[in-house]
Amino acid sequence: MLIAMTASSALKTDRYELTMLEAALRDGTAARQSVFELFSRRLSGGRRFGVVAGTGRLLSLLRDFRFGDDELRYLRDAKVVDADALRYLEGYRFAGTIRGYREGELYFPGSPILTVEGTFADAVILETLALSVLNHDSAVATAASRMSIAAGERPLAEMGSRRAAEDSAVAAARAAYIAGFGATSNLEAGRTWGIPTMGTAAHSWTLLHDSEEDAFRAQIAALGTDTTLLVDTYDIRQGVETAIRVAGTELGGVRIDSGDLPIMAAEVRAQLDELGATGTKITVTSDLDEYAIAALAASPVDAYGVGTSVVTGSGYPTASMVYKLVARQGSDGGWVAVAKASADKASKGGRKAAFRVLADGVAQSETVLVADGFEELGAQQHPDGRALQVTLVDQGEIDTAFEGPEGTIAAREHHFRVREELPVRALALSKSDPAIPTVFEDVR
Amino acid sequence: MLIAMTASSALKTDRYELTMLEAALRDGTAARQSVFELFSRRLSGGRRFGVVAGTGRLLSLLRDFRFGDDELRYLRDAKVVDADALRYLEGYRFAGTIRGYREGELYFPGSPILTVEGTFADAVILETLALSVLNHDSAVATAASRMSIAAGERPLAEMGSRRAAEDSAVAAARAAYIAGFGATSNLEAGRTWGIPTMGTAAHSWTLLHDSEEDAFRAQIAALGTDTTLLVDTYDIRQGVETAIRVAGTELGGVRIDSGDLPIMAAEVRAQLDELGATGTKITVTSDLDEYAIAALAASPVDAYGVGTSVVTGSGYPTASMVYKLVARQGSDGGWVAVAKASADKASKGGRKAAFRVLADGVAQSETVLVADGFEELGAQQHPDGRALQVTLVDQGEIDTAFEGPEGTIAAREHHFRVREELPVRALALSKSDPAIPTVFEDVR
Repeated sequence: MLIAMTASSALKTDRYELTMLEAALRDGTAARQSVFELFSRRLSGGRRFGVVAGTGRLLSLLRDFRFGDDELRYLRDAKVVDADALRYLEGYRFAGTIRGYREGELYFPGSPILTVEGTFADAVILETLALSVLNHDSAVATAASRMSIAAGERPLAEMGSRRAAEDSAVAAARAAYIAGFGATSNLEAGRTWGIPTMGTAAHSWTLLHDSEEDAFRAQIAALGTDTTLLVDTYDIRQGVETAIRVAGTELGGVRIDSGDLPIMAAEVRAQLDELGATGTKITVTSDLDEYAIAALAASPVDAYGVGTSVVTGSGYPTASMVYKLVARQGSDGGWVAVAKASADKASKGGRKAAFRVLADGVAQSETVLVADGFEELGAQQHPDGRALQVTLVDQGEIDTAFEGPEGTIAAREHHFRVREELPVRALALSKSDPAIPTVFEDVR
Repeated sequence: MLIAMTASSALKTDRYELTMLEAALRDGTAARQSVFELFSRRLSGGRRFGVVAGTGRLLSLLRDFRFGDDELRYLRDAKVVDADALRYLEGYRFAGTIRGYREGELYFPGSPILTVEGTFADAVILETLALSVLNHDSAVATAASRMSIAAGERPLAEMGSRRAAEDSAVAAARAAYIAGFGATSNLEAGRTWGIPTMGTAAHSWTLLHDSEEDAFRAQIAALGTDTTLLVDTYDIRQGVETAIRVAGTELGGVRIDSGDLPIMAAEVRAQLDELGATGTKITVTSDLDEYAIAALAASPVDAYGVGTSVVTGSGYPTASMVYKLVARQGSDGGWVAVAKASADKASKGGRKAAFRVLADGVAQSETVLVADGFEELGAQQHPDGRALQVTLVDQGEIDTAFEGPEGTIAAREHHFRVREELPVRALALSKSDPAIPTVFEDVR
């Protein structure tokens, strides 16, 4: 019998987090209240906005962030940490609070995407897991959102699983869905996250048969006339002719996976119309990215399938988010804002509250209020600003509304909503500055 | 109690594989003996060689490629396939044979990296899983091997987990290790694959304390004088001074994570020597890739830590491997070589046997013999060629020698061995053609 059992996520962690924990337990600083912030100093690739994704996955992984017998045995046998640290880890449950941007929200340089509060011990060991999930998923979502904007009303399917490691493929399908894609080829993404799945046949299907006609007949017998036939295994013109001869003019669609797409799409459309198949749709799937999609806007294409470029973030496979200590308790019990000082990697200390300032519904700035501790920020509001942070984990209690298929749908809806606030210049694909400036206001 | 339980890998699959299966069961072609080949038409990014990685992971995932109750329920409820296909999947175990390049082996355009033989039904549904694993892991290993060549005798550690999705981070650590890295920051990679792990402290460790000196003292108390202190949180010169004052001249190492590294390394080395800490090593970790590593060859650096660039394949996060039907049984029971005909994505039909042809121990060509079926190739040898393919799965029986930590070590050793065969021009980092040509010889 198969038992559905989730593995612990606790070792998806860099060793130095546990060596710091060991040293902090020894000198007593492990118990210092600390605020870590996950943010990005810049937007990769001259993008005009970033899209937060991964939050819902992170919350579920946090639920499984437990050091069980297997994990503790490895840490002991490999001499990663000492006995005191092992004892601490054995009882570890994240007991702190995480506030952050809603999944699907936009972000800009310096946006406080996640704020993790707890003891140093509580919060320091989430660094790698939080960054792994958010950096990957946000990179995919950011690229996907640009593709979704370029595609306009035409449906967009993610089919890049083969070009991503087998588990990131599932995460990528989810991130693309949140950012505007309508379906995925990946069945695990369908099962786990409730994303619609699609796909009919590969070239191997045609090659398996003694003729293209045999292959098309067999596919239609199994999947119905409404299916999509892949017409470019041999000669596209011949393929289209055979497709309509076999399926009739009610054929659902044809797919083109090679060739010069603007030319091919126009030729295939003309041929389909000539044959009377005016309702047969054309799907194109060959090495598309946001630029190729935009270039096809005037072509008679009905749907896009995107593979490699979306799962690899279209040239930027990771966001540049970092996880930094920004405030901690001092030896007197009060709050101290802290930050690394080096010129090229400086960060802004202090706890933050973030607002998207709007005028006539259009985003004007990312306004970030900065203070040392909790109290100054608690009651802060902004007259023209939409508050960007919500409580995701409250003293160890994970808000389940952000998890699972429901959280995924909510993130997608949120993304569509907030994308509407972007100024028009944010929708262009060329490299530029962030669409709105980030404004820090010190409220200390 | 935690039960170690592996989840099924069977849905990490594109939907069209199962719709083809359904249609093939219906028209009887599901039982046709078929040969699928996994290969790459080109080397990404003007690389001079590719490195095969992922094979050991794929074999373990193949072991878990089972359709259990949960998987079948999803496929039924989501109406992915019909009842006949569900019945077939319920009993599915891969019963075919997989031959392929050993993990760690080099590959070139057209190298038959994996050959999957079985019925069409058996083999078609492995397409996505095989490509996901091999494309990702080989992209990382190819980049890692170039970094390892650039680093020469200096140790190289992988620390990019935070810039890769949480599971691909583990796979990336493994691929980098196979291609020449000596350690990883990722604890799960240590547990699962037996890779040495490393890491001491982040900037947050220093910021947590009331002073840099407090932080250094606490770290040395916990981890000993042999530890590595991160000296660039505030001022590097001051950091080095404090480090040696606190630890003494026996300090194991200092780490620099920002700034202009050639200059910083020289200054820090001079300062350490001046302070008498001539044995204290310098590790650098700031945004390194193969070019930055090469540029530091003349600098007094003792070890490199590489993050983003290695886990994202240094600009090429996926290999361009594809999985194509190259031969199948005809209706007369004989073999038919098949291939897609389109100009830009043509492939070479037929079954293949591959040899690295050597002269004086130096690789001269990738020689690939091509035939329709099995018989012509069975006894083929090459007088000056090293046979590149081994049997990984024999009629459903997985060779365990390639799995787990042992398989990983063996792959690493194999990689070092075969890298020695490369001509000198293959070791340059600039973009160029493949180091050796691929020569196809038809033996039909």
